[in-house]
This record gives sequence, structure tokens and C-alpha cells, in this order.
Amino acid sequence: MRPYDIIKKKREGKKLTEKELDFLIEGYTKGEIPDYQLSAWAMAVFFQGLDEEETASLTEIMAQSGDTIDLSKIKGIKVDKHSTGGVGDTTTLVLAPLVAACKAPVAKMSGRGLGHTGGTIDKLESIPDFDVSLTQKEFIDSVNEQHIAVAGQTGDLAPADKKLYALRDVTATVDSIPLIASSIMSKKIASGADAITLDVKVGSGAFMKEYEGAKELAQTMVKIGNNVGRNTVAVISDMDQPLGFAVGNALEVKEAIKTLQGDGPTDLTELCLTLGSQMLVLGEVAKDEKEARAQLEEAIDDGSALEKFKEMISNQGGSVGAIEDLDLLPQAKNKLEVKASTDGYIQRIKAEEVGISAMMLGAGRETKESTIDLAVGVKLAKKVGDEVAKGEKIATLYFNDDQQLKEAKEKLLSAYQISSEKPEVAPLVYEVIK
Amino acid sequence: MRPYDIIKKKREGKKLTEKELDFLIEGYTKGEIPDYQLSAWAMAVFFQGLDEEETASLTEIMAQSGDTIDLSKIKGIKVDKHSTGGVGDTTTLVLAPLVAACKAPVAKMSGRGLGHTGGTIDKLESIPDFDVSLTQKEFIDSVNEQHIAVAGQTGDLAPADKKLYALRDVTATVDSIPLIASSIMSKKIASGADAITLDVKVGSGAFMKEYEGAKELAQTMVKIGNNVGRNTVAVISDMDQPLGFAVGNALEVKEAIKTLQGDGPTDLTELCLTLGSQMLVLGEVAKDEKEARAQLEEAIDDGSALEKFKEMISNQGGSVGAIEDLDLLPQAKNKLEVKASTDGYIQRIKAEEVGISAMMLGAGRETKESTIDLAVGVKLAKKVGDEVAKGEKIATLYFNDDQQLKEAKEKLLSAYQISSEKPEVAPLVYEVIK
Repeated sequence: MRPYDIIKKKREGKKLTEKELDFLIEGYTKGEIPDYQLSAWAMAVFFQGLDEEETASLTEIMAQSGDTIDLSKIKGIKVDKHSTGGVGDTTTLVLAPLVAACKAPVAKMSGRGLGHTGGTIDKLESIPDFDVSLTQKEFIDSVNEQHIAVAGQTGDLAPADKKLYALRDVTATVDSIPLIASSIMSKKIASGADAITLDVKVGSGAFMKEYEGAKELAQTMVKIGNNVGRNTVAVISDMDQPLGFAVGNALEVKEAIKTLQGDGPTDLTELCLTLGSQMLVLGEVAKDEKEARAQLEEAIDDGSALEKFKEMISNQGGSVGAIEDLDLLPQAKNKLEVKASTDGYIQRIKAEEVGISAMMLGAGRETKESTIDLAVGVKLAKKVGDEVAKGEKIATLYFNDDQQLKEAKEKLLSAYQISSEKPEVAPLVYEVIK
Repeated sequence: MRPYDIIKKKREGKKLTEKELDFLIEGYTKGEIPDYQLSAWAMAVFFQGLDEEETASLTEIMAQSGDTIDLSKIKGIKVDKHSTGGVGDTTTLVLAPLVAACKAPVAKMSGRGLGHTGGTIDKLESIPDFDVSLTQKEFIDSVNEQHIAVAGQTGDLAPADKKLYALRDVTATVDSIPLIASSIMSKKIASGADAITLDVKVGSGAFMKEYEGAKELAQTMVKIGNNVGRNTVAVISDMDQPLGFAVGNALEVKEAIKTLQGDGPTDLTELCLTLGSQMLVLGEVAKDEKEARAQLEEAIDDGSALEKFKEMISNQGGSVGAIEDLDLLPQAKNKLEVKASTDGYIQRIKAEEVGISAMMLGAGRETKESTIDLAVGVKLAKKVGDEVAKGEKIATLYFNDDQQLKEAKEKLLSAYQISSEKPEVAPLVYEVIK
């Protein structure tokens, strides 16, 4: 077998066997097949695609390329959730305790973020003394006893994907649906989930800007999951404007807590209920979505979801006091209100621009080496469809350092489009793919 | 400017500017842009193509990437000939003296071969004491005085092409017409030709197996030539069966001499007259093809073409005696006749198989390090359309070493297809593209 023939075969639009994919990916991961052959192959895949079977094989090969996490000692069906990423996406912080409160096991391993804001692990570190580094035993015991644990990712999961993704990133071969789908799913499979709920974002603030692409990605991932024996459901949700109001680490933690108290933004709450329902059904804790949704609403109403959050924080050494008194969370020293320049309706809020504005204030990492300022970020006051008067507050910037404040404010203003016509608001959840 | 954006732009089917191509190719040649970005780009070009202007720019950039040969001290229009390569292609050996005999300057720089047989330089070294290493002054003086010189290539011509071709060769990105065309033309332009005659081969023994591809390649190269100010004409000729009868270095030299004497194979003679006519017209030595052809035929008939060959040999230190007595050329110790296994007509002779058979006997190089046996090779006795009886000789193998004799014989037999129906013989020259 020669890498050359595999590249040529794919270039000609022919189907690769599992053996060929295995030879290629394993050889590449071991450093026996060079970058320049894999990048040519990835570009051939960009044009010719991979069919359902090839995509499933590639996913399994990458999932098995390094460490895999064994969650078999945890009772029940472990349902993992994954979002394709957006701006102000606080769902994990809400969903984990909410679903655990309904007695589904939540064994969440999360990464640090690279982008507009930090990842779930960064956000949770806003809570004083919260410890994300659990031993495997601590992690498993916590899930078995409290139904919940959230820890930083350990081990070398799917190194083949890591190496291939880094190469795709510099060779303009990222935007291939089978490659994106297998990349995401290989990591989820290596993480040991029994079933997977995917939140596929679509819109200006998402990786997938167009509905058609998002739907194809969702369908591809659901098929992979089913082909490799992990029940998978994908929710396609809007990321044209940011989710909720908060974009920034501690700001999002506060918003999550409010949502667990039943007092959160409508869109964030609704998305958590939708995703949570799918998780409870996949986890066989509820028999259908209706029953699942009722359980989740009950957990918010009776305070058990918030209680579960506190339990997790306390169990992992964090200060529960900071949850009861949100002022104890990191606070930015300064804030600046951003005001509408004209009367009208909010027509659009370009999510990506809001994200960049938050990153300029220090909320995110531009490179792996950047340090995050957990306190800073953006809080929107108006969302799409809202009416505003000239001079009325549309957002607040929270900052410690005013070095890029002017740019961040301009970026934020440029995110907002105000016009005299009342716009149609895009639905939050477009479709559920099973 | 970033290589990533250039790859993406081409991936999306957009046109690259000369600046972008220059940045990419120059950066790559200098080692500043890595292999893996160029291979992804080449694969994107495979799918999206390059337009006429992009192809001309790429060619010029590669032509200017290293040394360029200055032939301006040679009087007249220097017309170079290039063949895309086939089996038993002896045209240069015939054409160079034939055209020079008509007083067109032939300043031929040629390489050593990698493949079934050697290159022109290897073939000429069959002639005892012939010296292919001329100084620039000797080379130019010879052409000015005798209208002819054939020398080994010196200098680092089109290193960008060399590097890119080596990469394409291992990443399944060779078969892209604009990339093939710019590769060939960049070397011709760097070699200093004023005008170019291309022999584009098509058929089983050629790089281009299908007529459509060969025609597109020919048209692309002609357009490049015209876009960069070098008059270019392409002849599309058959390479489904070998050209002439001889495949092997000294064997081909003998065949060339016979052709210059007016006693060569019909197909080789005809192709040399066709290509030579184009060269004389491009060189403004003849006003049209008819006049050119008459001049060439005259040069064969009156012996001046053969005389010119001897003059060149003698001028470069070679033994003219070996041309007058062909037995003084390298002779293989042994020969083996290969016979028809059945009665019928020769339906096909797969050129590539004949070439491999000759290579097995030692006529060609498998790697740059291989040594060539100048004496060995294959001489066909029958060509497509000929009638044969069972047991009649169809070819002779000339060999010194019988190590791979059995395989070479089998290979040769497998090249011949004999059937009871008289086949239609493909035309030798399909089309002339101007």
C-alpha cells in the first residue's frame, strides 16, 4: 500500500477501504507518512467527499489513535453534549447540573477555549477555589454519587485528529463536512460517551454560516454516531446573534446561575430545555421529549438544578458562597455603556463581532499562550427585534484595561444594525436531526 | 499575503494574480513556504485549473527561478523541439542534423533519460569519443559555424519547477494540464529558445493516453508560448505503438542514421518531416510548410543531412568511422528472436510494455543511479497492421546479461496483440496546433 495510490484514488472520487484509511492515518500519526501527502489527500477529500462508511471508518481510526476514556464504571447511560461553538454559549454550565438534577449521569470533560471567550473549564474557574483537575477515581465516584463531575481533559485523546486538524488549519482544508464531522465525533468517542447530543450552530457567529451546511454536518455526525454504536441526536440552533446576554467568563457564569434559578434569558433557557430533553431521552431517564422537558422544568422550579450546581462546586472544592452572592465572582473594575446612535429596531447583532469585542477586552485567547481576564466581557442590553431609542443603552462593556477599549466599543457598535422596520426574528431551534 | 489565502482562493475556483503566484512559488523555492501548503495548492489546481493568464504567469515565474541560458549570440531564430516522451522516440537524433542541414540554427541542450531508454545525450554517447560537455563558447561557436551543437544541460534551470514537480510526483498532482504545460514550457523558456516545436504524444505509450487530454495539453502549451513571446507550434502524434522499430540507445542511433540516409522506418521519417517543417517555418528558413518539407526531403536525398550529422559528431570529437560502419557502434553479445504464437494481423503493440521490456534488458534507468547498457534493447520486426504467420519473428531482443531475459521476453510478447481481423491503423500525425 502506498500513500500516493490512496491520494489518487480519492482524487478520482473512488471509495477508500477501512484498511487504506487506517494505513494513511496511522502512518501519518506515527510520522511515517509526511504532511505533504496528507494535505494533498485532505484537499482531494474537500472536493470528492467521503461517504457514510468512509466517514465512520475515519472517525473510529482517529478515536482509537490515542488514549480512550473508560467510563464503564459509571452507572447508567453517559450522554455527552457537544456544541460546534458560538458566541456567549453558556449551555454547558446550565445543562450539566440541570440534567444531573434529573438523575442522568453527567461525566463532563471539557477543554480550555481558544477564541472569543474561554471554554467551560475557564468559565468554571471564575468560581473561587473550584478544582477542575480530578483523578479518574474522584471523577467516576463523583458521577456515581452526585450524578455530576466536570473536569479538564486529560490524556492524549485522538492525537490523529489533533495532528490532522492542525495541518488542515494551515492548508485551507478545514471546511469539509466529513472531515469536520469525523474530527468532532472522534474526540467524543474517545471520551467514552455512550450517547451524544450535538448542538450544531448556524449563522454569522457560527462555524457554519449557512443552514444547508449546518444541516449536512448535523446529519453526517448523527450517521457517524449511529454507525459506531453511539446514539446521536443533533439540534440545529441559531447563532446569528449571541445566545443570552453575556459574553465573557464570569459574566456567563452569572447568567448560567440565573438561568438555573429560572430567571435566565429566554433563548438560553429554551435551548437548554431542548438539548436537555434530548439528553434525558437518550439517557433513558425520560421516555419521550415531553416527559423529559417536564422533568427539566420541574428541576428549575423546585430549585434542585441550582442545588445540583452548588453540590458540584462544593464537591470540587469551590466556594458555594460565590454562587449565593454573585458579587464574590470576579468583577471588572470599570464598565462602559454603549448607546444606540439612532431610533429603531435591532435588525441584526453580528455574533462574531460581539465575540471579537469581548476578546479585545481580554475575555478570550488569541493564542494558546494568552491569559484570560475572567472578569471582563460584554453584556448585551438589547437583542434582535427589540425597539430602541437614540441614546438608549444597547450593551455594557466590562473592562480592567482600557488599552483596546476604543476598538472594542467600535467593534460592538458595528455588530448592531438598527433600522426602522421591525425585523422577523429567526427561530432559535431550527430542527432536531435523529 | 499568506499561503493559506492563496490556497483557499484557488480552492474556491478564483483566479490568482501574478503577485500571488510569485509569492507562492518563490517562497516555496526558497524553502520559506512548506511542502504541505504547496501540495494542497497543487491538488486545488488539479480540481479548479488555472486559466490562460495564470498558466503563463506560473510558467514565467518558474522559468525565471534559476539560471537562464542566453543564446542571443547565435544568429537566426533558435527553434527548440520538445517531445512529451514515448517509446523508441529517435526524432531528435534525426531532426537536429536534418534541420541544421537546411541552415536553421540547432542549439540543442538535452538531458539524460529516466525511463525505458536513455535520453538524447545517452544515445549520442553510443558514438565512440563523442563529447557532450561543451563550454558555452564552444557551443555557441559550433552553432554559428556548423548550425548545430548538441550538449548536456548545464546550470540550474527552473529549480522551482524541479522542486514542484518532485512534490507533485508523490502527491498525485502530476496529471493537471496547466501544471504539466507550465512545467515543460518553463524549462524550454529558461533554455533560451526563441520559438518552440512541441511533439505531443498520445496513446498507450505516452503520458497522455487520451486524445482529448493531449489536445488540451498541446493547446495550453501553444497559448503559453504565445503569451510569453515564443512562437510555439504543437504536433499531436501517435504513441500507441512504438515509433520506428528500435528501442534502445545504440539501436536507435543506427535507426536515426538510416533515416538520415533515406532508409528509415516510414513513421519515424514522416514524423521528422512534419516536425522539421514546423521548425523551418518557425525559424523563418522556409516560407511555408510545403517549401520546408521540400527542403528537408532534398537534404535527405542529396546526403547533406547525413553529412551534417557526421560534421556534428566530428566537431564534438566523436568517431565518424562508427557512422560509416555501424558495426563499430556498441553491439550486444547476444540476441533472441521472439516469435508469433499464432497466425493473424498485429492488432496492437502496447508501447509501454515494449519500453519496459527494453528497460529489463538494461536499456533504461529505473533510478538516477542506474547504469545504462547502450548496446541492448528491442528491435521490432512487425508493426500494427502487418500480417504474421505462427512462428514468424515479430521482434529481436538484444542483450548482454540474461538475468531478466525471460521476463523481458514475456513482457514483449504481452505487448503484441494478434488477431484474425486486419486492424485499422491509427494515423501518425493527428493534428498541428498553432
